Amino acid sequence: MPRTTIHDIAKALNTSAATVSRALNDHPSISEATKVMVRVTAKQLNYQQNRMASSLRSGKSMVIGVIIPSAEISFFGSVIHGIEEVAKARGYNVLLFQSNERYQQEVQGIQTLLQSNVDGIIASIAKETTHYSHFLEAKRRNTPLILFDRAIEDLGVSTVVIDDYKGAYMATEHLVEQGYRRIAHIAGPSHIKIFHERLRGYVDALSANKLVVDEDLIVYGKVSIDSGRERMNQLLQLDLMPDAVFAVEDFTALGALQAIKETEFHQPGQIGLVGFANEAFSAYITPSLTTVDQQTNIMGREAAQLLLNAITGNANTETLPQKIVLDPKLVVRDSSRPPDQ
Amino acid sequence: MPRTTIHDIAKALNTSAATVSRALNDHPSISEATKVMVRVTAKQLNYQQNRMASSLRSGKSMVIGVIIPSAEISFFGSVIHGIEEVAKARGYNVLLFQSNERYQQEVQGIQTLLQSNVDGIIASIAKETTHYSHFLEAKRRNTPLILFDRAIEDLGVSTVVIDDYKGAYMATEHLVEQGYRRIAHIAGPSHIKIFHERLRGYVDALSANKLVVDEDLIVYGKVSIDSGRERMNQLLQLDLMPDAVFAVEDFTALGALQAIKETEFHQPGQIGLVGFANEAFSAYITPSLTTVDQQTNIMGREAAQLLLNAITGNANTETLPQKIVLDPKLVVRDSSRPPDQ
Repeated sequence: MPRTTIHDIAKALNTSAATVSRALNDHPSISEATKVMVRVTAKQLNYQQNRMASSLRSGKSMVIGVIIPSAEISFFGSVIHGIEEVAKARGYNVLLFQSNERYQQEVQGIQTLLQSNVDGIIASIAKETTHYSHFLEAKRRNTPLILFDRAIEDLGVSTVVIDDYKGAYMATEHLVEQGYRRIAHIAGPSHIKIFHERLRGYVDALSANKLVVDEDLIVYGKVSIDSGRERMNQLLQLDLMPDAVFAVEDFTALGALQAIKETEFHQPGQIGLVGFANEAFSAYITPSLTTVDQQTNIMGREAAQLLLNAITGNANTETLPQKIVLDPKLVVRDSSRPPDQ
Repeated sequence: MPRTTIHDIAKALNTSAATVSRALNDHPSISEATKVMVRVTAKQLNYQQNRMASSLRSGKSMVIGVIIPSAEISFFGSVIHGIEEVAKARGYNVLLFQSNERYQQEVQGIQTLLQSNVDGIIASIAKETTHYSHFLEAKRRNTPLILFDRAIEDLGVSTVVIDDYKGAYMATEHLVEQGYRRIAHIAGPSHIKIFHERLRGYVDALSANKLVVDEDLIVYGKVSIDSGRERMNQLLQLDLMPDAVFAVEDFTALGALQAIKETEFHQPGQIGLVGFANEAFSAYITPSLTTVDQQTNIMGREAAQLLLNAITGNANTETLPQKIVLDPKLVVRDSSRPPDQ
C-alpha cells in the first residue's frame, strides 16, 4: 500500500487537496469543523503528520544535516559526537550524509539535506572537491552553513579548524628533539588546505631547527593506507634514507609502518614515525603511534554552536563569518622513541 | 534572514498561501499565468523548491534512511557502503542517523526520518532497546522497514543477518583445533539475539568436541574495550585460568588483549584469542586478531535490495517478511596461533 497523501484525505472527505493542506496547516480560512474532520481522517488513514507541512509554514524542522567524507574515518565519527551533544541538548536531531570523498556525492548531499528541509548544514569537504558552488546553494537558500576541518575561507561562511601548521610543526620538532635528523614527510594532496598547512609546518620546523629541507624527503601520497605504504617504500629506496617520517595523517602513517615492518628495519628504534589525527587504531597498533590530536569533540561542539547561533540568530544582525582555530595536541607514544645508537 | 516560506511568496504576489501551494504543486485549478508568476517569485526569493511539496503529492522522496547504533563501529560503516552502492545505483540518496546505542535516540531517529519523508528505513537495533513499538510506527505509516544484524523477527519485517551461531561455533572450534582446551567466552548482553546466538555456538562447539562447558569460564560483558579488559582480568584471577578466549566481538577482544598484555602472560603463545566482526583495527593490532568476518558489504547490499523492492513493489502483492541469513567467514591471524608447549 502506497503512503497516504493529502489527496487520499481529500478524496475520503470529498474535498480538495488544497483544503486539506490548509486545514493541516491551521489556515484561518478553514472552519474548525473541517480542520477536525481532516485531522481525524488523516489519523485514520495513517497520514504522515510530519514536520514537513508545518515546516513549509514556519521554515523550521529542528533537524540539522552533517556532510562528512566518510563515516569510517574515526576523526569524523568523533566530531559528529561533539555536534550531536550540542544539537540534542538544544532539541535538534542530526542527519548524516557521506560524500565518500566524491564531489558528485557531496553535491547530492547538499541537495538531499536541503530537500529534507534541514535548518542548517555542517560539512567537511571531500578530497575530490575543487568547485564549491553547491555550498553557495545552501547560502542562497538561507540555510546556514558551517565548514569544519577541511574548510575553505573564500566561501564567506564560518569555519572551525585546528591549527594544522602548528600541529605539523609540533610533530616535526618532536622528532628533532628525539634525536632524528633526516626527517621525511609523506604529504597529502596540496590543493587541500589542511594538508598544505601541514607541509608548511614541517618545512618551517626543520628550518627553525637548522636542518636542511631535502626535497627528496618530501613525497606526495593520497591519504590512505595503501598510498602510505607505497610512498614509504619509495623513501626506503633512497640512497640517503630518512631516519624518521612525519606522515600527513594516521592512515598514511599506518601504511608507512607496514612498509617499514616488511623491510629489515623494525619500529621502534630504527625509523621514527609520527602521524596526524589520533585515529582510533593509533593507540592499539605496535608500536603505538605518536600523533597529533585534533580536539575532535570540541571541534564538533564549536561547529554546532556556530550553526545553532546562525539558525536562531537575530535576522537583523548581519554577522561576519567567524573563524575558530583550535590548538592541536601532540600525543607521544612508542613510534617516536629516540633512535637506537 | 529567515528561510523563505510560501507565505512570503503569497505576500509578494498579494495572494493566498494556499494558491501558492497549489501553484507550486501544479494544481489544475490554478491558471498557467499564476503558476508562472509563483515560480518566478519563488526563484527571486530563493524559495527552497524542494521535494517536500512534490513528495506531499507523490509520497516519494528518493531518499532512504539508515539508523545505526554508532558510526564509530567500522562494521556499520562497512554495511552502509553496501547499502549506498545499491541505493545510489538506483537513484536513491541515503541519510544516516546514529542512535548512539540509546533507546530514546533510536525513537527520535525513526521520527526524524519519517518527518524527513524518507521512502524507507534500514535499521540495526541499539544495545539499550528492549521495546520496539517505534519500529511499528514506520510500518503503520507504510514506510518499508528492513532490519539488519541486530534484528528481531517478531516485528514481521524482513531481516538480513549472518549466522551468528555458526560464526561462534567456527571460532570456538578453531581454538580447539589449534590445541586449546580451557576456552573461555566473554559474552554480550543476552537479551540481544546475536550475542545469545554466539553464546549458543560457543557452548555447542565445546560439547561437540567433548570439552566440558565450565560456567566459570563464561562471563558477561558490555561490548566495549573497557568491559573486555575488566572481564579478562576477572578470568585471569580464576584458580584454573583459561588457555584461550572467544570474545563476543572485536572491541571486547581488544580490551581482553590489553588485559593479557598487562600481566605476565603475553600474546601470542600464552592465551589464544578470537574476536567477532573483523573491525578495521583487528588486522593492525599486535598480535593481529583472529576474528569472524560478517560479510558486511553483502549484508548492506542485500538490505538495500530488500528495501528498494518493498518501496517499488506492487502494492497488490502482499509479500511475507523475508529473512536472509549470510554465512560468516573465519579470518585466521596471529592471536590464535597454537599454544606453546
